[in-house]
Amino acid sequence: MRDFLPADKARREHALGVIRESFAAHGFDEIETPVVEDVARLHSGLGGDNEKLAFSVLKRGLDADDLQAAMDSGDLLSLTDLGLRFDLTVPLARFYATHRAELPPVFRSIQIAPVWRAERPQKGRYRQFVQCDIDIIGEAGQLAEVELITATAAALDALGLENCTIRINDRRILNGLLEFCGFAEARWPQVLISIDKLDKIGAEGVVKELSADGADSAAVLGGILEQLEPHIAEGGVAMTVEAITGILPDGIDTDAIAALESLAHALDALPSGVSLRFDPTLVRGMGYYTGTIFEIAHPGSGSSVGGGGRYDGMIGRFLGTDVPACGFSIGFERVVDLIETPEDAGADSVVLVYDQTVPLNRLLAIKAELIASGRRVRLDRRAKNLKAVLDRAEASGFRSFAFVNADTPDAAALELKPLG
Amino acid sequence: MRDFLPADKARREHALGVIRESFAAHGFDEIETPVVEDVARLHSGLGGDNEKLAFSVLKRGLDADDLQAAMDSGDLLSLTDLGLRFDLTVPLARFYATHRAELPPVFRSIQIAPVWRAERPQKGRYRQFVQCDIDIIGEAGQLAEVELITATAAALDALGLENCTIRINDRRILNGLLEFCGFAEARWPQVLISIDKLDKIGAEGVVKELSADGADSAAVLGGILEQLEPHIAEGGVAMTVEAITGILPDGIDTDAIAALESLAHALDALPSGVSLRFDPTLVRGMGYYTGTIFEIAHPGSGSSVGGGGRYDGMIGRFLGTDVPACGFSIGFERVVDLIETPEDAGADSVVLVYDQTVPLNRLLAIKAELIASGRRVRLDRRAKNLKAVLDRAEASGFRSFAFVNADTPDAAALELKPLG
Repeated sequence: MRDFLPADKARREHALGVIRESFAAHGFDEIETPVVEDVARLHSGLGGDNEKLAFSVLKRGLDADDLQAAMDSGDLLSLTDLGLRFDLTVPLARFYATHRAELPPVFRSIQIAPVWRAERPQKGRYRQFVQCDIDIIGEAGQLAEVELITATAAALDALGLENCTIRINDRRILNGLLEFCGFAEARWPQVLISIDKLDKIGAEGVVKELSADGADSAAVLGGILEQLEPHIAEGGVAMTVEAITGILPDGIDTDAIAALESLAHALDALPSGVSLRFDPTLVRGMGYYTGTIFEIAHPGSGSSVGGGGRYDGMIGRFLGTDVPACGFSIGFERVVDLIETPEDAGADSVVLVYDQTVPLNRLLAIKAELIASGRRVRLDRRAKNLKAVLDRAEASGFRSFAFVNADTPDAAALELKPLG
Repeated sequence: MRDFLPADKARREHALGVIRESFAAHGFDEIETPVVEDVARLHSGLGGDNEKLAFSVLKRGLDADDLQAAMDSGDLLSLTDLGLRFDLTVPLARFYATHRAELPPVFRSIQIAPVWRAERPQKGRYRQFVQCDIDIIGEAGQLAEVELITATAAALDALGLENCTIRINDRRILNGLLEFCGFAEARWPQVLISIDKLDKIGAEGVVKELSADGADSAAVLGGILEQLEPHIAEGGVAMTVEAITGILPDGIDTDAIAALESLAHALDALPSGVSLRFDPTLVRGMGYYTGTIFEIAHPGSGSSVGGGGRYDGMIGRFLGTDVPACGFSIGFERVVDLIETPEDAGADSVVLVYDQTVPLNRLLAIKAELIASGRRVRLDRRAKNLKAVLDRAEASGFRSFAFVNADTPDAAALELKPLG
């Protein structure tokens, strides 16, 4: 977990503001849930492997009997009642189930918030990190996918990110592929895990992993993957009818293919920095996806900078009634590393270098005048090493400075000079 | 802990933005620390009673031996390594000690973030709540107090809060009072706890609490408090030399009185909705305060909506070298209950009521046109009960609507009508 110093924090807040504003303009509404959820809810099986990485909060007021009971049962979770959320999707499902009566039938949510996972520390992985999620709950039609992708693409564009690729697939196409290859349905989750490693181990590696049993199916799959590999190296194929059908065996789920085509048609006007590609080998780890899945790739990041998909069955786990749902999440930590603080940041800022002979109330009045005129103002005491004072001001993002001494009557008398 | 629905969340984000912007204009820099700190650091004695309310995080990978060891030692903290922060001051001291070399000699920090306390649930107390803190580290002079009070007053003013009173005192004046009354120094903390209850139990109650021993001192204190009570009922006396000296016994710390007077002089131009009052019975709970202390009162809130003070000794506990420090914290949960969402919120928002015959790409293109013109746009499907659709749009803060059907060629053809 990290501290953020002023320059980093300013860049982060700028980026969060841009994302928040893009999402809001597209009609989404921001909500917030507590950082902790009931432990039972966090460990209900919806979080996949992430559940194992949840931080748990020790119950208050435990005594020796409680410890003894935990020892006897071997159930350490009995010592905890709350846990830090590991994603924003499980809390959203719980939120929706709690507040459904107060929400519109089609609910478009924004969640911009940190989540926690007890990951082993490694480059680019943090134990506290921010996710920017939008979800549409209650819309079974493709409007959900279209609005989510449009709003996410607009946010990436507003951040100044170019060369983003949104790879798209549909779980039904994956399932169709596995059926076509002849894998028994019970093996699909395992096969998907192998396919998900395609970029690391190649078609040959996938076949090797899956050959233990079902060797015939593995061979068929291997043949298909080998044909797909050159396309996938390019991020997938164009989202056109010809391209989509051209790279799949005949007979794969035609509904899903038609859905992809109409999605491509509806998304014909994305920002120029964002392109759509169809990648029939895109898996997305979470088991709860039921239809369309998507993932954002950017050449500046080794792993995806966002992703999401349709998860129609999940809300029902909390609510008892199935409600269609679809979501898209921007991995903020990866995105923020790709952007710069805008050049006009701090344009109106000024450092007042004062000497100690200035009466405090006059110094404050001059500062107040400048703030009232729309400037950001910092006071810094005049020191022997004036260069150090000015260098520091510039490094802090200030753009101009002025001297204040006992003779300065008001802000109008200041001589503002550029820094640097 | 609470969920925030869209209307509440929007009001909160608006208020946070106003506060953040006020603080930044006054030259403060925002930082961020992780929500958890090492347990040992949280329980180092600097957090006072709040330490007992800290949520602790269970260590990962504990086994039966660890439980046995915790049972044998009776030390439940051995099961935890991290805890949720209960304030923003302890993390700031740790942050400053870690990053001092990268920070300016006078560091003005903003922290706007949640903290957690395992409070018994009661009205107006939450287990997760947001604090908005500004602190100045490295400034021994009164400039720190003056800038903190000015920036906080500006934030309150920008939020539209009127009738705020900032009560001010100095720990040295309190200590002087206790010395004047003849209390032994070892008893001061206990006496201060009693004085802190003055508004609840009255001068008589304070005397009663303190009469167990030191009956003479308690009687002297009681006499002073009785004289002060009418002033305190008005929030204290004006910050003028005459008023300040007029309500104190002779011989109380003259340095501190002079400091209060010069503070009043330096703060002669606060916003009209914020007034300064001197209250010699203001205590502020935390033991780490060493000089000026302040607290914000507002007639709309039963308890204080913010407070702070000088804590020159605390940073030294982490750094080994004493560094002067002073801070002011706005209790966000209380402030946000006192303000309204601004009337112009959502002025440019429009709900597009579409019927399902509109091709998705056209619908999206019309939405995109409106967003590009600076509007916030939501789509809502036309339903038999049109009134319900429009009522919902209005309740969500949207200000206008338009119909989109298969004949609508583009945004220019829309007829925007006001909602409500």
